Amino acid sequence: MKLAVITLLALALPGNSFFFPPTTPPTFHLSSTTSSTFDLPTYLKETTPFIESSLSTCLEYQSIPQTKKITEAMYYSLLAGGKRIRPVACLLSYDLFSKKNNKDLKVKYETPIATALSLEMIHTMSLIHDDLPSMDDDDLRRGKPTCHIVYGEDVAILAGDSLLSSSFEYCIKNTRIDAISGDNKPERLLNVVSRLGASVGNIGLAGGQVMDLECEGKPSGEVGIEDLRWIHLHKTAALLKVACASGAILGGASEEEVEKVEMFAEKIGLAFQVADDILDCTASSEELGKTAGKDEAVDKATYVRLLGLEGAKEEAQRLTDEAKECLSGWGEEADGLRAIADFIISRSN
Amino acid sequence: MKLAVITLLALALPGNSFFFPPTTPPTFHLSSTTSSTFDLPTYLKETTPFIESSLSTCLEYQSIPQTKKITEAMYYSLLAGGKRIRPVACLLSYDLFSKKNNKDLKVKYETPIATALSLEMIHTMSLIHDDLPSMDDDDLRRGKPTCHIVYGEDVAILAGDSLLSSSFEYCIKNTRIDAISGDNKPERLLNVVSRLGASVGNIGLAGGQVMDLECEGKPSGEVGIEDLRWIHLHKTAALLKVACASGAILGGASEEEVEKVEMFAEKIGLAFQVADDILDCTASSEELGKTAGKDEAVDKATYVRLLGLEGAKEEAQRLTDEAKECLSGWGEEADGLRAIADFIISRSN
Repeated sequence: MKLAVITLLALALPGNSFFFPPTTPPTFHLSSTTSSTFDLPTYLKETTPFIESSLSTCLEYQSIPQTKKITEAMYYSLLAGGKRIRPVACLLSYDLFSKKNNKDLKVKYETPIATALSLEMIHTMSLIHDDLPSMDDDDLRRGKPTCHIVYGEDVAILAGDSLLSSSFEYCIKNTRIDAISGDNKPERLLNVVSRLGASVGNIGLAGGQVMDLECEGKPSGEVGIEDLRWIHLHKTAALLKVACASGAILGGASEEEVEKVEMFAEKIGLAFQVADDILDCTASSEELGKTAGKDEAVDKATYVRLLGLEGAKEEAQRLTDEAKECLSGWGEEADGLRAIADFIISRSN
Repeated sequence: MKLAVITLLALALPGNSFFFPPTTPPTFHLSSTTSSTFDLPTYLKETTPFIESSLSTCLEYQSIPQTKKITEAMYYSLLAGGKRIRPVACLLSYDLFSKKNNKDLKVKYETPIATALSLEMIHTMSLIHDDLPSMDDDDLRRGKPTCHIVYGEDVAILAGDSLLSSSFEYCIKNTRIDAISGDNKPERLLNVVSRLGASVGNIGLAGGQVMDLECEGKPSGEVGIEDLRWIHLHKTAALLKVACASGAILGGASEEEVEKVEMFAEKIGLAFQVADDILDCTASSEELGKTAGKDEAVDKATYVRLLGLEGAKEEAQRLTDEAKECLSGWGEEADGLRAIADFIISRSN
């Protein structure tokens, strides 16, 4: 019954057809980039379509018939919506250092956009693999059937592998070295790619996920707050860290400045996960676009379980405050990043 | 019963304990690097331990307790033996251009060894994921239980993801830019990493594998020689191509020279697969270190099935001759690569 419903859902999806890019490329303009109090909703309204549009043409070789299926599976998950927080964090971190203030987003973000998209490719890979039957076994993601439900487990695994590896190629091929700010331009790009690689490895996403699986095997009482923090530092914060660090590096930041931005990202990464745990037990599946209440159902250690709902809310606020503290050396030019920190704990999905 | 045997095998494995690097690093010397007829067996006997030893310490952060399990799973598959053909092809391709002729392999291969190891990490990832139940469902690889049999499907998927992403980080962090030959040194490294990424994407390994899965679903009569060639060009030849191309790029080759070496690799990549198909129906499981006769059992389209055993042997020879033809502009300095071409079709496992 469950499978039948899912199959029907999959067939009814507009995204379940092979994607072709629009023939006339759209243009994207910022209405305001200099206001002293940063208007995040307006920024997101203008930037998200630019990111979505860029994502929709980032995979090459779509005209080769033999790659139709895998490319379709990659696009299916890549274009399934989502908050695009990692690309946005990368672009806002770039803004903190870059002197570019052009209203045309294609010009303004010419340098960091490839890295921003690579981050989303990596993030999408992690979602596809996390949802697999042998992992979290999730049928729904962002309100749509998960990749393996639509394309099968084998194709989903390979689509994830392909998104991961293509992200590195894409980042290198589509970042104009001479447009990078600061000295040692090619070395800056190598630094970005190296950090992208590290963020998914055994001390990044994948390491955090394995530790998470190990803790899931234990009664929740045996998993402490330090274990939980380690898991989320690697599973969630690692990619946000490289998002902010890479934007800064490409924008011409010094090593010390990169470290500060990275520390900011680590704090909001943890806050993001605390907010996720809060949402899992306070929001509906419809609001979340994925199965709600799952943590409770599988007796999973969460911040809410360890600290209580109020305690978790306080923890999220504390982390957000600490994050903003990392930006204390900057004035209103860092308001974009500060707004992202607030957005992360006040979001409803 | 099958599971019980496999579990016993897994427990009996010396590799099934957490790996610690040797405290005193061994030294590696070539006995002969200047003979006019290249002695591949001696070269492999001297180079393989150097590659194995370098692989055994390539994964960082092994002392962090939280990453113990995933790092162990990564090492389990990475150090499970194998011919190490991709690293060897990279090093021999480097030799064709580099002027370094030091007998100490650590000095001689200081520049390309990180890329050579990255290639093996990527190759190992592809084996781990190929062996999964939802893919080829193989219990044995290189005579040992496969990664998911020992560590579970979830950890195996993540160990593969981690090997893939870590390979890019490793390559960048461990290649000394100033030791690269030729002009535009950092751009050469970016070129290598970009090619590594492309080799696994939808027009590389993963694309070839999805097409392979699609063809497996059809009766073998419906899969033609061109389909088979496309699959193997991407599933097998893509990584050998980047192995040879990256060795050449780091050794200072021109674009035109890189293309010739790449064409050579494409031919030996296809020959490698033809030889694999021949071995699948002529060698025993013991000789192969994996289940023999599997292609026949699952009615899979192979070169042997499409061309007959003799026809497949002729095809392998033709591809090897064409490969050597690509090197016709070089003298005995290319004998190392020529020897690899011969080795590929004469191997017994």
